[in-house]
Amino acid sequence: MYLSKRGHDVCIVDNMAKRRWEAAVNATPLFTVPTIQDRIRTYKEKVKCDISFRYCDIAENPKLLNEIFDQFLPDAVIHYAEQPSAPYSHISAGAAIETQRNNILGTLALMYSVLHSNPSCHIIKLGTMGEYGTPDIDIEEGYLDITHNGRTARCLYPKKAGSIYHLSKCHDSHNLEFGCRAFNLRVTDLNQGVVYGIDTDETWLDTGLGTSFHYDAIFGTVLNRFLAQAAVGEALTVYGSGTQTRGFLNIRDTLACVEIALLNPAQEGEFRVFNQFTETWSILGLAQLVQSVTTCKIQNIPNPRVEDEDHYYNAKNSALTDLGLDPHLLTVQTIKDMYRSIWKHRKNIHVDRLMPTVKWRG
Amino acid sequence: MYLSKRGHDVCIVDNMAKRRWEAAVNATPLFTVPTIQDRIRTYKEKVKCDISFRYCDIAENPKLLNEIFDQFLPDAVIHYAEQPSAPYSHISAGAAIETQRNNILGTLALMYSVLHSNPSCHIIKLGTMGEYGTPDIDIEEGYLDITHNGRTARCLYPKKAGSIYHLSKCHDSHNLEFGCRAFNLRVTDLNQGVVYGIDTDETWLDTGLGTSFHYDAIFGTVLNRFLAQAAVGEALTVYGSGTQTRGFLNIRDTLACVEIALLNPAQEGEFRVFNQFTETWSILGLAQLVQSVTTCKIQNIPNPRVEDEDHYYNAKNSALTDLGLDPHLLTVQTIKDMYRSIWKHRKNIHVDRLMPTVKWRG
Repeated sequence: MYLSKRGHDVCIVDNMAKRRWEAAVNATPLFTVPTIQDRIRTYKEKVKCDISFRYCDIAENPKLLNEIFDQFLPDAVIHYAEQPSAPYSHISAGAAIETQRNNILGTLALMYSVLHSNPSCHIIKLGTMGEYGTPDIDIEEGYLDITHNGRTARCLYPKKAGSIYHLSKCHDSHNLEFGCRAFNLRVTDLNQGVVYGIDTDETWLDTGLGTSFHYDAIFGTVLNRFLAQAAVGEALTVYGSGTQTRGFLNIRDTLACVEIALLNPAQEGEFRVFNQFTETWSILGLAQLVQSVTTCKIQNIPNPRVEDEDHYYNAKNSALTDLGLDPHLLTVQTIKDMYRSIWKHRKNIHVDRLMPTVKWRG
Repeated sequence: MYLSKRGHDVCIVDNMAKRRWEAAVNATPLFTVPTIQDRIRTYKEKVKCDISFRYCDIAENPKLLNEIFDQFLPDAVIHYAEQPSAPYSHISAGAAIETQRNNILGTLALMYSVLHSNPSCHIIKLGTMGEYGTPDIDIEEGYLDITHNGRTARCLYPKKAGSIYHLSKCHDSHNLEFGCRAFNLRVTDLNQGVVYGIDTDETWLDTGLGTSFHYDAIFGTVLNRFLAQAAVGEALTVYGSGTQTRGFLNIRDTLACVEIALLNPAQEGEFRVFNQFTETWSILGLAQLVQSVTTCKIQNIPNPRVEDEDHYYNAKNSALTDLGLDPHLLTVQTIKDMYRSIWKHRKNIHVDRLMPTVKWRG
């Protein structure tokens, strides 16, 4: 919707896998999400722009994906088709394998469809800041100049992912970087921080156009989950000490970043990496911010993940602001606006879905 | 056979995929390879030791793999179950996806079967020196201490693989390194150089126990292929300038390295990396060595791969020799012995399978 309203001709390719994964773990978005077809119709009525839709499981049916590329002939493809949850990837061996199957084979299929149809089509891939982990050195944007025994080499930044899901994203990045080297593809990798937020200018057009807002422990990102806990009078569950620090960004900025990448494409053969976050927060700091607005309690619980809690964190993120990103920073007002929407729908919140059930060392 | 003869109790798990891949690309080993069941029977007759065999596609049937682990209860597992050819992975989009599906999902299934059955089972994985690529700095054994902006971190050595196949091995390494961190697994990653050679003490027991020796452009490694070309009076085809330098080792040493890793297992939670090669050669240097024995011609042909030809190469490999590896180095005598065997079977060589048909930029 964001891109279509700005004059881009958009085709959505989806296999509805996210709805299946949600159902499998008994998760439902806070706000009802109509079918994609109904959402497109509603959008069309409001904006008088069309968006097309093709059903395709890209990991299972690469030939159909080739056909879609040949028919639509996109200038760019935005790759959102990944299983996006770290906890989901740790439910079981099956979920781990399914996550890497979907993400890695889907990304490969996408890469080869671009190669088949139009190698100069710009691939914009959603990566994650979680690919880097929390190294004891500054995190650069994708690459690092390494001096060792008196010689220097420019290398892909060494990764240390903290989940099977995050690993799948590393593998996708390496596969696509090779695609740039070997096949002269053009790729932008957006290493996204943790996203929060509910509304955009487009979701305000109609209640049927709302985001798929998750508050549960599997698909809900931390700030969204904290606000849901506050809305039902539960304590905010901070994993471990909460001193873990991460990059964050508002959902509005994710769309702006994608359009910036679209309008400033990578060169042929270039694997370009942007760190896509606007500010860093510790988990405990976020909880305290929410507490300052909602007067909820904070509870430190055993960390279900395997991650460093006390760690250095200094990640660079200047590339997107250099290209014009004007960030929506997290303020008390942001929290109040989000909280108001969530409070209105608090009867939809299932309290039993807020506590983590998936443990890395299960 | 090597391990069984030394008193280890061995169970082979295989799905015969390699025979299928060979058939798909019209490749046949130089020496007839009987069925695995017949090979085991022959071995048993000669040595009076038994080897068990289970048919299982580990990537497709992780549950059966769990059962096999629960029944056999291995102290260690040696992971050879990967699609092993870089050219194969570049035949088509389908072969690329199949390679990563088989290798990554198979390795994940193996990791989770170990976790399910006995997390202290030592995983010995065959990696490849090709994971590192040819960086402008020294190649260490798995890890690198990186100093950046005044701070230092120990990182997994940054990888730059040169094919879809080599990438799959990088992804496996990263998945297993995570398994050590998250699940306390013990893993040894043997980053193997290019293997050459035909015979071992065990293959000499009976002609039905010979190695699956490939000379073709898809599955044949470079020295094996050169000797086949010489045996049929063809020029040795050097890809590009031939100044590409790689680590090499004799097939006998690969088995010795695996047993060294077995007898000196990684610690719990340790992802240990050994660079498993005994010497480095340039491709042209190898061709000249073969030429000195066989008086064949050398022909430089356009490089079908995407790789640097003029590059720095200084890779460390002391860990295995420190543990007692006594290398079989490549000599004129080695070439003469190999050439004699190949010459005897030269009527089996299909000349049309010697030239590269798969091009990375195809």
